[in-house]
Amino acid sequence: MAIKTVDEYRERISKLKPRLFIGGKKVEKLADHPITKGVVEATAKVYELTLDPQYDDIMTATSHLTGETISRSLHIHQSTQDLEKRLEMARLSSQKLGTCNYRCPGNEMLPGLAATTWEIDKDKGTEYYKRFTEYLKHAQKEDLVVSGSVTDTKGDRSKRPLDQDPDSYVHVVEKRSDGIIVSGAKQHTTAGYAADENLILPGLSCRRGEEDYALAFAVPNGSEGITYIGQYNPYSVEREYADDIRYVGNPIYGQRETCIIVLDRVFVPWERVFMCGEIEYTQKFIRRFAKTHRMNCGGACKVGFMDLIIGATQLIAEYNGISKASHIVDKITRMIKLNNTSLACAIAAAHMGNEEPLGSGVFMPDEAMSNLAKLDTNDGFWEVIALAGDIAGGIAVTMPGEMELENPEIGEYVSKYLKSAVSAKKRMRIARFIQNWVAGLHGVATYQGAGPSQNEMLILYRTTDLEEKKRMAEELANMTSREFYNSLKT
Amino acid sequence: MAIKTVDEYRERISKLKPRLFIGGKKVEKLADHPITKGVVEATAKVYELTLDPQYDDIMTATSHLTGETISRSLHIHQSTQDLEKRLEMARLSSQKLGTCNYRCPGNEMLPGLAATTWEIDKDKGTEYYKRFTEYLKHAQKEDLVVSGSVTDTKGDRSKRPLDQDPDSYVHVVEKRSDGIIVSGAKQHTTAGYAADENLILPGLSCRRGEEDYALAFAVPNGSEGITYIGQYNPYSVEREYADDIRYVGNPIYGQRETCIIVLDRVFVPWERVFMCGEIEYTQKFIRRFAKTHRMNCGGACKVGFMDLIIGATQLIAEYNGISKASHIVDKITRMIKLNNTSLACAIAAAHMGNEEPLGSGVFMPDEAMSNLAKLDTNDGFWEVIALAGDIAGGIAVTMPGEMELENPEIGEYVSKYLKSAVSAKKRMRIARFIQNWVAGLHGVATYQGAGPSQNEMLILYRTTDLEEKKRMAEELANMTSREFYNSLKT
Amino acid sequence: MAIKTVDEYRERISKLKPRLFIGGKKVEKLADHPITKGVVEATAKVYELTLDPQYDDIMTATSHLTGETISRSLHIHQSTQDLEKRLEMARLSSQKLGTCNYRCPGNEMLPGLAATTWEIDKDKGTEYYKRFTEYLKHAQKEDLVVSGSVTDTKGDRSKRPLDQDPDSYVHVVEKRSDGIIVSGAKQHTTAGYAADENLILPGLSCRRGEEDYALAFAVPNGSEGITYIGQYNPYSVEREYADDIRYVGNPIYGQRETCIIVLDRVFVPWERVFMCGEIEYTQKFIRRFAKTHRMNCGGACKVGFMDLIIGATQLIAEYNGISKASHIVDKITRMIKLNNTSLACAIAAAHMGNEEPLGSGVFMPDEAMSNLAKLDTNDGFWEVIALAGDIAGGIAVTMPGEMELENPEIGEYVSKYLKSAVSAKKRMRIARFIQNWVAGLHGVATYQGAGPSQNEMLILYRTTDLEEKKRMAEELANMTSREFYNSLKT
Amino acid sequence: MAIKTVDEYRERISKLKPRLFIGGKKVEKLADHPITKGVVEATAKVYELTLDPQYDDIMTATSHLTGETISRSLHIHQSTQDLEKRLEMARLSSQKLGTCNYRCPGNEMLPGLAATTWEIDKDKGTEYYKRFTEYLKHAQKEDLVVSGSVTDTKGDRSKRPLDQDPDSYVHVVEKRSDGIIVSGAKQHTTAGYAADENLILPGLSCRRGEEDYALAFAVPNGSEGITYIGQYNPYSVEREYADDIRYVGNPIYGQRETCIIVLDRVFVPWERVFMCGEIEYTQKFIRRFAKTHRMNCGGACKVGFMDLIIGATQLIAEYNGISKASHIVDKITRMIKLNNTSLACAIAAAHMGNEEPLGSGVFMPDEAMSNLAKLDTNDGFWEVIALAGDIAGGIAVTMPGEMELENPEIGEYVSKYLKSAVSAKKRMRIARFIQNWVAGLHGVATYQGAGPSQNEMLILYRTTDLEEKKRMAEELANMTSREFYNSLKT
Repeated sequence: MAIKTVDEYRERISKLKPRLFIGGKKVEKLADHPITKGVVEATAKVYELTLDPQYDDIMTATSHLTGETISRSLHIHQSTQDLEKRLEMARLSSQKLGTCNYRCPGNEMLPGLAATTWEIDKDKGTEYYKRFTEYLKHAQKEDLVVSGSVTDTKGDRSKRPLDQDPDSYVHVVEKRSDGIIVSGAKQHTTAGYAADENLILPGLSCRRGEEDYALAFAVPNGSEGITYIGQYNPYSVEREYADDIRYVGNPIYGQRETCIIVLDRVFVPWERVFMCGEIEYTQKFIRRFAKTHRMNCGGACKVGFMDLIIGATQLIAEYNGISKASHIVDKITRMIKLNNTSLACAIAAAHMGNEEPLGSGVFMPDEAMSNLAKLDTNDGFWEVIALAGDIAGGIAVTMPGEMELENPEIGEYVSKYLKSAVSAKKRMRIARFIQNWVAGLHGVATYQGAGPSQNEMLILYRTTDLEEKKRMAEELANMTSREFYNSLKT
Repeated sequence: MAIKTVDEYRERISKLKPRLFIGGKKVEKLADHPITKGVVEATAKVYELTLDPQYDDIMTATSHLTGETISRSLHIHQSTQDLEKRLEMARLSSQKLGTCNYRCPGNEMLPGLAATTWEIDKDKGTEYYKRFTEYLKHAQKEDLVVSGSVTDTKGDRSKRPLDQDPDSYVHVVEKRSDGIIVSGAKQHTTAGYAADENLILPGLSCRRGEEDYALAFAVPNGSEGITYIGQYNPYSVEREYADDIRYVGNPIYGQRETCIIVLDRVFVPWERVFMCGEIEYTQKFIRRFAKTHRMNCGGACKVGFMDLIIGATQLIAEYNGISKASHIVDKITRMIKLNNTSLACAIAAAHMGNEEPLGSGVFMPDEAMSNLAKLDTNDGFWEVIALAGDIAGGIAVTMPGEMELENPEIGEYVSKYLKSAVSAKKRMRIARFIQNWVAGLHGVATYQGAGPSQNEMLILYRTTDLEEKKRMAEELANMTSREFYNSLKT
Repeated sequence: MAIKTVDEYRERISKLKPRLFIGGKKVEKLADHPITKGVVEATAKVYELTLDPQYDDIMTATSHLTGETISRSLHIHQSTQDLEKRLEMARLSSQKLGTCNYRCPGNEMLPGLAATTWEIDKDKGTEYYKRFTEYLKHAQKEDLVVSGSVTDTKGDRSKRPLDQDPDSYVHVVEKRSDGIIVSGAKQHTTAGYAADENLILPGLSCRRGEEDYALAFAVPNGSEGITYIGQYNPYSVEREYADDIRYVGNPIYGQRETCIIVLDRVFVPWERVFMCGEIEYTQKFIRRFAKTHRMNCGGACKVGFMDLIIGATQLIAEYNGISKASHIVDKITRMIKLNNTSLACAIAAAHMGNEEPLGSGVFMPDEAMSNLAKLDTNDGFWEVIALAGDIAGGIAVTMPGEMELENPEIGEYVSKYLKSAVSAKKRMRIARFIQNWVAGLHGVATYQGAGPSQNEMLILYRTTDLEEKKRMAEELANMTSREFYNSLKT
Repeated sequence: MAIKTVDEYRERISKLKPRLFIGGKKVEKLADHPITKGVVEATAKVYELTLDPQYDDIMTATSHLTGETISRSLHIHQSTQDLEKRLEMARLSSQKLGTCNYRCPGNEMLPGLAATTWEIDKDKGTEYYKRFTEYLKHAQKEDLVVSGSVTDTKGDRSKRPLDQDPDSYVHVVEKRSDGIIVSGAKQHTTAGYAADENLILPGLSCRRGEEDYALAFAVPNGSEGITYIGQYNPYSVEREYADDIRYVGNPIYGQRETCIIVLDRVFVPWERVFMCGEIEYTQKFIRRFAKTHRMNCGGACKVGFMDLIIGATQLIAEYNGISKASHIVDKITRMIKLNNTSLACAIAAAHMGNEEPLGSGVFMPDEAMSNLAKLDTNDGFWEVIALAGDIAGGIAVTMPGEMELENPEIGEYVSKYLKSAVSAKKRMRIARFIQNWVAGLHGVATYQGAGPSQNEMLILYRTTDLEEKKRMAEELANMTSREFYNSLKT
């Protein structure tokens, strides 16, 4: 079995030396820094769940390359059942972490990369798929954390890469016999600095002339020329300066931490290059990645988050003594409805999945349904947090810190005046947990993660066969008969 | 193969003699009366589709009783695949008919009835399931049209049956050695008068003392004591007086036609009685029926309707020359989104289905997902028709009749001033088809069919495990640790 | 006082001889034909309300031309108070008629026409305003019904008038010394055939070369060359063939009746021509008309309709015995919320109104607010009818005809099985009234009347000062300081 | 003129010595502490605006007590014009501060208190109004900052005050000849610690037996027995530890700061007691306060916030080079629509206001419209921030800190990779400003401020005359005629 233990993971992570900056300072030890520590803990938890027998079916899979039991985080879906297990993994890890499963985004790129490299090789006689397969075997064998980056920094979105600073999109700056030199930066990368490997994949549907931008490769963490710049926001500062992390919203695992990965003339040997110049495959890769990502991250992951939010909201309603009021029951039911709708779309996406391309052995979710999962989640998640905020009430944003309970001067006041049907401590703890969702980063992150709503709308429109629907209507309206046709001529 | 041809069906229907009144007059021949004719045509079309090889997989099934190929309209789901085929049948027939598949509602009661009679027999040693099985074999063999009625007329909804006119709900008024005498009436029955058989099933979750109301049975069309009273509305009158039905909205199949079935001391022999007094099984039956119905009628059937509406709306947009405008594309995409959401829920309901009760062999859709399918459809369908109305514009309600095209005095004016990018005839035809949806009965019928939204909300709330969600939140908020527990005591 | 009595109105209408076709047949007497009779009755009711002392303040005004008391239907707003009274008139007449106040659309064009002709005369030395003033004095003195038509038939919306059949938009075909000859047709005209006068006004924002289409004029009903073609739909047929109109939805006043007005080389003398060739004023007129119309028809008129729908829905809930259920109260409250939101926007539009152009004495509603009134109403009205349909339930579409109560064969059944907390007759009567809204023409008509939502969106965007909002944000984000400016340079 | 300068205000605030704790520590100097400093700056800005001639009309009023020019923050509305000016003040201060105008909540209680004390005196011969008038004269003369507190801490919401810890609601614990002793605590008080005076008013509609809770009074900041406990959350920590406040979201004025005010046996002399035991007036006061608050805080204040959010979102769209894309224009327009809807309701509330009680001279907004303003804002504000998040994209939550621009090791990377159509600095600055809204406290605060949505729903239902609407429907459905009445009897 090619699955590593938590301790092995911690050991490995302790050796990473990424060049990482957060909040104006260099981060020295990932496992100690108050912000990156949460990333390490979350990832460790995923390793723990993977070896937990009760989640065996969800968290592990059988490698199609080696036949060994591997982490599902490194698996390429071989069936619709695999797609379903994959979404269950996304939901489960969200329920357990309340933040990103940092092995997830990288994993979502693997099937699209497998499918597309297979197709390029088949069409062009290249050997990308062969390289990728070797690479994947290595990752599976070592049970590595692989991050994935797609979104370029883009600069002015109204301009193509060659019409502005060419580094606005990651690209080849030099080709050598032993490999390539690349420059540019990717943004929104979930904790790339804490991964063993960074996958860098095309985020732009390239046109002729943009061959240098049609580029997929992998680099190990800390390769020369790579700098990571971490996000920094009120939730970062809270964690940075917390005397006691029990008093912050998601105490152990924190927020979803992302970074910009700057690639400043980074060398990549050819065996780690999986696409280089094949512009006509960039959009194929992007749509394959997107549909996988939108089923999981857009759909199932947020279902897990909504499970937590619903649970916490029901708790605060009970704590406040209002959980039986009809308007509270209605609102909780509405939250359930929105959550289940996202789940239904993700399940439909998996269940309607197909091998793509035929012969590759790679299974992909249904494109319309996976895009729909993301689209329904965009609106649904915002409404769920709105309802949670409405039910929790002002306390979710106006509450003092839990440390005041131990302040000898006012602890008794806080204890007395923040108690409800339960003690102040319980109430404050869950209110802070809710704050994390209703006044935090996850709302916007839900829109951003897996792409903005307009992208899903476009795909939905394009994947729909309007001609067929038109024909159905014409047939029923009796417009397809010879008689009708003749009547038009007169 | 136990499947009858269209001609056999037409032959059979021509012999039915229901006591039926519509619009103040008695209907003599179902196949000739302008309103009931549409029902006959729609049902005939279903027989036609059943024998059409291209729909074989969807429209037929293998009887678990006889092993014969039968119409899926008389099948009891034996697997989740059966549930999926069943919802495909609902969508297909909606696409082909633009109105009710009149074999559908009855079919949706059969699995719930099979499951519940099986369970009663198992629990109580009765022989309802045996009777039902015999009855079903007969129906399958003759390939009968079986209507189903659940909704009582109810009188004052704030009162139980025994606190008001006892006939407000169908009940036993006398038990005899050879059978029972029943009275009461069911409403919203889709074309019971044109079915070979009428299933009458409990619509009330009965309490102690209401044993006479816990009642399930079948009666043949036209049994003594049965009177059908058909719906009557502007769409009825339009069809009643149309000189040329090509000029009405859904020319061949018309609106969904329903009726009240009055049972005035109707005799039912014991072999057709499938429940009689077992109050504790009424709610079980209702929930089983409801979840089947909400997946199909609530979900998939309306998906078929929305396919038609989207197709027609795209046509009128093209006819008007505006189909490329960004706001039109956005609205069409929104319609697609709503449609696919309903479909996803129905698919999830089928795919997550289970045998229920264990050992019965009957498969039921997932209860939360099927209720969700209906709930999402309620709002989605209304929004779809709103968008269709918005895109089609005023012509959908202010248009003159198509017969004016042939009026020698003004035909040329109509032809000249109602043409657009296409001829006036095409534009008027599709506008009338759209009118049928956006200014017709289907909007409200979508809320009513398969039950009002509040019912689905209740089920959704009840089927959700809030305790589990609470535990997840507590765990992440670090409220399940011994340390936290201890801190509460101080 | 220049206000005519109902009898005077009926007398006058009895003399009209429009060339009118409905449902394939020529209409001979407006007051007798079952469809046009409703229009006459509705208009008669408006005359009656105008002379009813309790509505004096709302229904009448003082002419700024003659100082006489006139019907507000012929008044030009002289103040924001006038705008407010105007919207109260719209709401009141909707409450009383449940359909169009047929004097309303014409009235909504008068202020825009007054303002624009005044402006053209001022800018160009023409005498349109003078002609218009004489014309208005005449209309006020005789208390005439003036219909208004703006929407051309348009043909292919992707083409300008000169790129297709030139008659797709009303235009001048010949200029003579004594007047002009015009051709084309207007659609969606509310009952133009039953008005004394037809105003024909520009519906296209004309460009250079389209001078012949920049055209405003008035013609008397029945002028030579004018043909009216009435709308025809299920609600038309219902009324056409009803034995007893008490049994239809809005028994006395019916649906909103519209027609196409065909102008086939109609002669208009110069004194009735109010714009002819001044392309740069067409958009000005349209925006002025639109903002007036959107406040009244888009906003207040539908508020009156929603008042009726809410009332009827509350009645059916009481009749069914469910009016105290929390979900019913919630839904009724939601309907109230939507209704009041439309009202608030209309009131804000009136209250924020201004004299436009300065010096003209004509008051116009605030453009953003009046467009908003329509926009909020579009969505709100649909949701209100959805909620009414949800609460009323299936009976709103599956009910038999009320005439069945008098059918000796089944009257007692109907009476017994359709009673609830009240008699079947009351319940059926109000259910039919609700059907009229939830399964009728008003839903789409609400989108269409006063223009599709996209138009209001465009105006809202254009009337908003985004630069000012940007400046506010920049100032608070400390981006307007010299210090920030300097920091950018480094 | 009784208006103080900013310097006078700063001087006065520097002398306040509240017993205040934030984040586990005692706050010593309000003007220096990084969190409370923002409150002082915001209040100072309000003093500045009050003396700014261009806002004269909005920010000042004429005292009805003294005839002097006073700050509108201490004015009692004497007309609907005053109500309109009041909402303009709310919008203006939100635009200028991007957070709470800390003089606002107290001001919103003054008219309700004036009206209710006037009414009690009239009904009961007490002298509350006289005391209140003297108190108000003093506040106006000294131009004091008066905070207002209504919301008790409540404990278990399912219990009345006497069924749980009696201090869950503020109440009288002892009556003396010279005054009363009160205990309890109020929560959600906007910056009570930085006000000269704290108004403490009833938040519970009291029943018989709860006389001790029917209590209104004023106490000076820092009275013996008063402790303030400030809110503490990620945004607090960010500000607490910021090296450079320019890099936080709303740099100068910060978040809305609230606190719990604990009253531990506080003495209040009789001349500062405005209600004591008159239970039947508690609900009257609450509804008066609520409708004032819902017009301003629920409506207009958030309109000002939405102005800022729309401006910032338009900026980021321009910075990213996407502001002309049709879906961006649509979303911006949608934001405008939601904003204007809130504004329209607030304007209607003011314009439809009335003197209440008659004779008191106090003007109150229309109750339905003001509640509607809050209700529309609840949903509208959440959707506006959702749209802002959608348009701004991931950068709003994944961005590094602006200080990185000055980090010599990576400043150039940040500058290069975060630039777009504008420099990284501009883009980061506005993105941080947006973060403040889309990932901050304002979303939930909007629900909480002025009360949860269910409260407004209840008022809307209660203030609507459903009987009148029912009558309208019955009349049109021809159910009020003698003929119909007679037909029921047969």
